[in-house]
Amino acid sequence: MDTISRLMRPRSVAVIGASADVTKTAGRPVAYLLKHGFAGEVYPVNPKATEISGLPCYPTIASLPSVPDVGIVLLGAERAQQAVKELADIGCAAAIVLASGYTEVGEEGARRQAELIQAAGAMRILGPNTIGLVNITDRIVLSASGALEMDHFPSGAISLVSQSGGILGSLLSRAAARGIGLAKMISTSNEVDLELADFIDWLVDDEATRVIALYVETVRDTQKFRAAALRAAQAGKPIVAFKIGRSEAGAKAAISHTGALAGSDRMYDALFKQTGILRAQRFDELLDMPASLATGRILHGNRVAILTSTGGAGTLVSDALGVSGFETPPPDAQTAAKLRALQQGDHAALDRNPIDVTLAGLQPELLKGAISAVLSSPTYDALIVIVGASALAMPELMSNAIKSCMSLSDKPILAYISPHAPNIGALLTQGGVPAFSAPESCSAALVAMLHASQAKTSMRIVPIVRQDQSRALDAWPAGSLDEEQAKRLFSSFGIASVRETVVTTAEQAQAALPALGERAVLKILSSEILHKSEIGGVAVNVTQAAISARLLQMTQDVKDKSGITPKRFLVQEMVSGGVEIILGMHRDVLGVAILLGMGGVTAELLQDTTLRLLPSTGGLSAETAREMVVALKTWPLLDGYRGRPKSDVEALVKAIVAFSEMVAAFGARLLEAEINPLFVLEAGQGVKAADGIAVLAVESIS
Amino acid sequence: MDTISRLMRPRSVAVIGASADVTKTAGRPVAYLLKHGFAGEVYPVNPKATEISGLPCYPTIASLPSVPDVGIVLLGAERAQQAVKELADIGCAAAIVLASGYTEVGEEGARRQAELIQAAGAMRILGPNTIGLVNITDRIVLSASGALEMDHFPSGAISLVSQSGGILGSLLSRAAARGIGLAKMISTSNEVDLELADFIDWLVDDEATRVIALYVETVRDTQKFRAAALRAAQAGKPIVAFKIGRSEAGAKAAISHTGALAGSDRMYDALFKQTGILRAQRFDELLDMPASLATGRILHGNRVAILTSTGGAGTLVSDALGVSGFETPPPDAQTAAKLRALQQGDHAALDRNPIDVTLAGLQPELLKGAISAVLSSPTYDALIVIVGASALAMPELMSNAIKSCMSLSDKPILAYISPHAPNIGALLTQGGVPAFSAPESCSAALVAMLHASQAKTSMRIVPIVRQDQSRALDAWPAGSLDEEQAKRLFSSFGIASVRETVVTTAEQAQAALPALGERAVLKILSSEILHKSEIGGVAVNVTQAAISARLLQMTQDVKDKSGITPKRFLVQEMVSGGVEIILGMHRDVLGVAILLGMGGVTAELLQDTTLRLLPSTGGLSAETAREMVVALKTWPLLDGYRGRPKSDVEALVKAIVAFSEMVAAFGARLLEAEINPLFVLEAGQGVKAADGIAVLAVESIS
Repeated sequence: MDTISRLMRPRSVAVIGASADVTKTAGRPVAYLLKHGFAGEVYPVNPKATEISGLPCYPTIASLPSVPDVGIVLLGAERAQQAVKELADIGCAAAIVLASGYTEVGEEGARRQAELIQAAGAMRILGPNTIGLVNITDRIVLSASGALEMDHFPSGAISLVSQSGGILGSLLSRAAARGIGLAKMISTSNEVDLELADFIDWLVDDEATRVIALYVETVRDTQKFRAAALRAAQAGKPIVAFKIGRSEAGAKAAISHTGALAGSDRMYDALFKQTGILRAQRFDELLDMPASLATGRILHGNRVAILTSTGGAGTLVSDALGVSGFETPPPDAQTAAKLRALQQGDHAALDRNPIDVTLAGLQPELLKGAISAVLSSPTYDALIVIVGASALAMPELMSNAIKSCMSLSDKPILAYISPHAPNIGALLTQGGVPAFSAPESCSAALVAMLHASQAKTSMRIVPIVRQDQSRALDAWPAGSLDEEQAKRLFSSFGIASVRETVVTTAEQAQAALPALGERAVLKILSSEILHKSEIGGVAVNVTQAAISARLLQMTQDVKDKSGITPKRFLVQEMVSGGVEIILGMHRDVLGVAILLGMGGVTAELLQDTTLRLLPSTGGLSAETAREMVVALKTWPLLDGYRGRPKSDVEALVKAIVAFSEMVAAFGARLLEAEINPLFVLEAGQGVKAADGIAVLAVESIS
Repeated sequence: MDTISRLMRPRSVAVIGASADVTKTAGRPVAYLLKHGFAGEVYPVNPKATEISGLPCYPTIASLPSVPDVGIVLLGAERAQQAVKELADIGCAAAIVLASGYTEVGEEGARRQAELIQAAGAMRILGPNTIGLVNITDRIVLSASGALEMDHFPSGAISLVSQSGGILGSLLSRAAARGIGLAKMISTSNEVDLELADFIDWLVDDEATRVIALYVETVRDTQKFRAAALRAAQAGKPIVAFKIGRSEAGAKAAISHTGALAGSDRMYDALFKQTGILRAQRFDELLDMPASLATGRILHGNRVAILTSTGGAGTLVSDALGVSGFETPPPDAQTAAKLRALQQGDHAALDRNPIDVTLAGLQPELLKGAISAVLSSPTYDALIVIVGASALAMPELMSNAIKSCMSLSDKPILAYISPHAPNIGALLTQGGVPAFSAPESCSAALVAMLHASQAKTSMRIVPIVRQDQSRALDAWPAGSLDEEQAKRLFSSFGIASVRETVVTTAEQAQAALPALGERAVLKILSSEILHKSEIGGVAVNVTQAAISARLLQMTQDVKDKSGITPKRFLVQEMVSGGVEIILGMHRDVLGVAILLGMGGVTAELLQDTTLRLLPSTGGLSAETAREMVVALKTWPLLDGYRGRPKSDVEALVKAIVAFSEMVAAFGARLLEAEINPLFVLEAGQGVKAADGIAVLAVESIS
């Protein structure tokens, strides 16, 4: 048995610092283990007791009768380290360290944490500062948290992994109240050793787990996380993640536009997107989405039937679905006929959607008939049943009708509970019909199902062609490259630039112009000055007749405004037509990402950009690059919007891949790189980099 | 007493069709009236009974001992009309008609509804298809809905008005479960007579009502609604509205860009914005926001202190607040010192925010000390207290600590309940500390409070200068004006255009050009062709030397592509620089709105537009026009973004006002009008309309 399996399904557990007083925190783990029916050995360790809860208590770890799979260390931070060392010494698989007082309290704590790692050696650690874990499937509670006081945990197919113990407790209590069943719950907290990725990886192979829900504060090892998440995607186990730290977005200062546009939270968006993880936008969704996914039902399309016993709520849910892109079409002729055949009296209108069954009377046979008509209709991909106040008096009526129809179809069936009636919701959820009290939760649950059914087919690891390492990367100088150098660098990776000539005098400029066209761009060339146009260092539409005077004027302007006398200039081809794009990179603790954005000042203000993280193996695949292009809100500008010529999207895709390979090849040595603008010309005519920056570190620091 | 007051606070109520069987719907109204202690007279009317619930039952309306203030009509649609007529005949103030089967079921129902209005004469009607109303303040239940079965309604300061009875029931049941107190609840439903606006207007003067919450499906009389909502704003009674129909946005076809950009849901956004109504984005917020507003506490800024007994949840709430623009700054030195003085042991870190009181122990004195330190700190505008699992065992601990501190300050105090613990939440809410179970609800509640405190000072009716009616509006021809005519029309209202000359031959074009500059724009001029550029009917940058040939080429191109041979052309001044704006109108059932949008294809794709409805009195005020300009996401482009020259915003504001006055002056006769682009030049240089359309109806249809 592997180590994490020994931690998750231990045959024996030692509880270090156990107390016989069950009202104390230290008294809980042994009590919880016994109460929930742990079938293995429990070894309380405490030199001051001889018996705890009827079990023999051992004075020391060394005196245990056999090597435990897991040690729960209940001691404070000062003493935990010694216990960990002793557990490691006897060959225990993993220790769960509950103590707080480590990195979260500053320097002194950080020192303690380093010592703890040292003490553990090869033994794995969960924590510290964790509330532990609960294997609900096998009824094993390895925790001292009061949040686990409850007598019964709802067992099911959702496993929760949280970097906060308190949030895990909150989710458990909320899930239990809603009848949402869980499989495994793990609080990883400080993650000195075992982290989110380790448990994701383990849960992929856990039969009881169908859906993984993550509460994320930070991802410590991006590549490991990515690999585990992709394994889950390939195994068809959806992951839903709620990530905090969203409001830190934009807090980082950065000198290039790329840096300014790419906040760290957007890096997480990219990471989740690239690994098929569905991001919960609200905390509630961290249960709403898994609740629907846990049913295992597949949503094949976006057409939803709504069956309601209260008119207003039907409209409300229909509207919420519409906002999320779902459709609520009226029934097809055959289904409408089936529904009409059920109706009594002239008020009922069962051939609409929402299908209002209130007026036709809440009769079990009618409900069953309506549900089965909808489930067998080719017009609908899913059904939402709305429970109104009238159903409160007969909670079984609706749930029995639904239950008796569930086997007719594998289409998703959800419930919306209009009044405050948590018990009916829990009853339905436990019966396999996830119930929600917010109309927006119904949408979120269906969005999750649609995502999962689509991700199943699309999420796979694309083989990356490794970049040619033979390029003379070391030849490029350290520091900021000037514009001409930067574009030569990009060009060496296959990204074409505008034609241009470096000149130092007005005469040279005049001589250089004709080869570039009737008019040209004149720019200062300097690695010191980043914002050329703001100090008068750029002139467009310059003719041969005017260029001498313009260059002299520019020299004076730049000198006046920046104090620097420009010595070198670029005479550059004017690009006419074409769509302006920004192509850049963004580096933060999560890794390196490629940023693609629509150029021009309007798009910049409206932040029309998208990010993708580089894989560890090299650059981005062409498939990912193409996804980025299409993800831009202004993608139609490249795609022949309103009769415009189509742009050379293939050339853009190649440029993105080439840029990403460049970034991968340089590794940590490339501090910044951006092409802005990159002109995407008409189909067949390629792309042209018209300006760019690149900053190299002195030497490789990877 | 006015009629609506007689309806809301009747001294006597007749129940037409009352049943002695309280298990039937018709048995409920009398039972509910008595159960909740109605102090006035109740007259059951039923020819088949002599006594109901111990009250004498009357055979007919005519036989009633006195004229009732209100008649509740429990009869079906077929018989309700006669009862309404009889109630009207004896001088009853208002009838509540519960029957369904009116416009909501089609033509036959619409006929019945017309007859019902006829039958009522001067008597007011609530409904039909309503569940009635509940005056909770005075314990008067005028309803037969099973949703009102509960023994006790939480009394408070929030009044709900809903166009759906089912939703009203849902809100009541949810509010009760959360301890949210209500004042009045009214279901207006089909609104044959009394509508949302009537009740808003009445509630403004209702002492018990501090906040009004609306569930809106449609607004029938925009001007009446607007007037009532503005009265509420001026009285300092915030209105929160949840409006469905959001997913219809964009469903309407429209030939001009303006129509395509302005969906009907955006018209509601404009209506709400202009009347100070806060729009709930989610259904939950329709209770979350009023719950905080009902406390009457004022939020003066965006800095929030979080006091928590569970670390993870503190971070979660802090993050949610940050997403909504709130700040959670650390305590100032003095407050930090106070907090440190409370702490025991080395683990506690009370001088941070979130302020974690878990580790320092959940002691009442410590909690009170921390709360009072925060409330008296100049660093914070509000406090959120987080209740964790550890507080579940001692629910009174936290609530007592808060209660004892509430009088210290009038800053808002909210609670977030981390585990599933609805009872603690209800306890706190009832005690004046609104409690929420979603972190996003805490944000929404604070957003509402901030909105209310700001709206109080900013929302007022701006006097409108009536437009000059003397302009010869009738001189303009019916149908589509051509571009030149349209711009002359705009110009007659004071909106300057580019200089241009109408020509019919190449020679005329050549002669006209020099007066307009070195280069000019050449366009076909036609009222038949709307999309000139797509059929080759526009050329820019044309020189005098080239214009003859260009005109002939254009004639051929347009003929080839559209089949129409252009006869007239415009030679037009080229505008260089300037920011392109779209200025248009949008008309739908809610009224007429002015649309302002950033021009250019990127902005069009990203839909950077804003709408404001015209008041009934004329055009928009300059203040509103200025709000529109600043509301554009790309407003910085006009405001000197990155060293660009500032645009002539004052001229743009004047153009918006002038355009709105034109729209108001024409009334229903103006079917469409749009200036696109309107160039906004550098400050002091004004605006120039470069293209535009206007479509006039044959005659005034207003």
